[in-house]
Amino acid sequence: MQDLENYFNTLFEGKEPDTLYAPIAYTMQQSGKRLRPQMVYHVVKMFGGDVSQAKYVAAAFEMLHNFTLIHDDIMDKAPIRRGLPTVYQKWNTNCAILSGDALAIMAFQQLLKLNMPERVILDIANVFATCTLEICEGQQYDMDFETQEEVTIEEYIRMIYLKTAVMFAGCLKSGAILSGADEESREALYQVGINLGIAFQLADDLLDVYADTEVFGKSVGGDIRDNKKTYLYLKAMQDATPEEKKALRQCYESSEMPFDERFQKVKDFYERLQTADKTRHAIHLYLEKSLDELDKVRVPSEKKAILREVISNLEQRSK
Amino acid sequence: MQDLENYFNTLFEGKEPDTLYAPIAYTMQQSGKRLRPQMVYHVVKMFGGDVSQAKYVAAAFEMLHNFTLIHDDIMDKAPIRRGLPTVYQKWNTNCAILSGDALAIMAFQQLLKLNMPERVILDIANVFATCTLEICEGQQYDMDFETQEEVTIEEYIRMIYLKTAVMFAGCLKSGAILSGADEESREALYQVGINLGIAFQLADDLLDVYADTEVFGKSVGGDIRDNKKTYLYLKAMQDATPEEKKALRQCYESSEMPFDERFQKVKDFYERLQTADKTRHAIHLYLEKSLDELDKVRVPSEKKAILREVISNLEQRSK
Repeated sequence: MQDLENYFNTLFEGKEPDTLYAPIAYTMQQSGKRLRPQMVYHVVKMFGGDVSQAKYVAAAFEMLHNFTLIHDDIMDKAPIRRGLPTVYQKWNTNCAILSGDALAIMAFQQLLKLNMPERVILDIANVFATCTLEICEGQQYDMDFETQEEVTIEEYIRMIYLKTAVMFAGCLKSGAILSGADEESREALYQVGINLGIAFQLADDLLDVYADTEVFGKSVGGDIRDNKKTYLYLKAMQDATPEEKKALRQCYESSEMPFDERFQKVKDFYERLQTADKTRHAIHLYLEKSLDELDKVRVPSEKKAILREVISNLEQRSK
Repeated sequence: MQDLENYFNTLFEGKEPDTLYAPIAYTMQQSGKRLRPQMVYHVVKMFGGDVSQAKYVAAAFEMLHNFTLIHDDIMDKAPIRRGLPTVYQKWNTNCAILSGDALAIMAFQQLLKLNMPERVILDIANVFATCTLEICEGQQYDMDFETQEEVTIEEYIRMIYLKTAVMFAGCLKSGAILSGADEESREALYQVGINLGIAFQLADDLLDVYADTEVFGKSVGGDIRDNKKTYLYLKAMQDATPEEKKALRQCYESSEMPFDERFQKVKDFYERLQTADKTRHAIHLYLEKSLDELDKVRVPSEKKAILREVISNLEQRSK
């Protein structure tokens, strides 16, 4: 992984115009969790693939992820990301649009650097492109949900499947393609990623209400502040009586009630309806499914130890 | 070309979410001049390549072009394009950002549909990606120039090289790769496109001042209204005495003088300094260079007739 950080530290250096590349370097040099690159490396190591080539695939997905953050932050009017001003805040919206565009193209260019058989590069490029388009679809559904009165849990899961899960799935599958894995293992790993990704997002929704702010790295209650229809909110709405439903909606959407009061009231609803436990249970089921899919991958069980650990650790996700 | 229009009429149909794909269909179904696809087809026919496959390359570049328009219109705050409201105006900025993103990815996906040797697809993908990144760089320079006090003609040509010319070059070169053309012909065609593209943009700058509005399809003087540093303005500034320079800049940037008066005064400067004639001369030189490069392409001269005509016609460009 240090290899990847070094790569990101040189990739945008001295490139002109600075007004285009400085926001990209700024974004890429904030070490996020680098979860997606890790997925790529885990799979390549699991299959004993070429780790030197994994760098380009890992870089491509991490750059893709950061491209989506730059554009999403404009759309969500988010001022802070990873404790720093977002790109459109630090520069301006035009810079953020264009830097995001350039980063997406550079992400794709990483795949073209692969020193691998042409079929392998094209197969990964196909996964990458499909995944990118699905992420856009997911983001659009997410925006649509803001003004859509009723959102079902099924619709919500479909949205996070597209917006979040396909990228994890794409990382794992691309790592498998790079390593010359069989078709069945590729598909199983794709499903590992889908289920892991959905669990990841549900854990994110949970943390937004219950996280330890210090560990989480951002303040809690943001989703409630922004009236985001999260899994917890939708689950609570599903379980509530008609009266409770009306009261929860009124409280959630209230523009008059002070935030602290709203936050506490929503938490009271969640407690009464056991929403947190139910969310934890849903996370557990997705993680179990992810582990089941991992079992189908055709390598000796001991090679799967790291990925199994990654999946299991998500059950205790705290940041 | 009708084949391509039919393709655009079905490609986005019924795709969900509609809020993502409707702006794309809206943009792609406005027949622009389709200049870039025509370039691809001309080259493939010139080499006797596979015209059925040319559709995907032509579609990729036309979609790329339209992606840049959707995002540029946000950045330039342009309300109208091809006589219709721009995407961010008809929907909103978020929709325009995301639809543009999705269109760029779909453009790239067209290349992955090619039923050609893998090496050919990857070579075209490389040209396509490089060209896309350069267009972003060009757009960034264009924005930077708005606040940059002094812009040289050399810098301006470099900007339109990136923003406009590389896409023509990319179309021609990709058509050559698709047709299995030799390396020298590919490079010659790239240079045909660069010189043609620069001439095309200079003609655009000229038309913005002197076009017949009916034929041009948009009102004249827009660049002057927006204080755009065009070739004409930079050339006039280069040729002017220090006093004229000061007066031209004051008039060009004046926020108090009524537009009609400003437009007339700027035209008076241009007339005195013979700016239009000098611009026509520059266009002529770029077109001559384009024809010289076309001579280097290794096919019998009679096969080059259509491209030669396209280049020559630009000298009389009126829209």
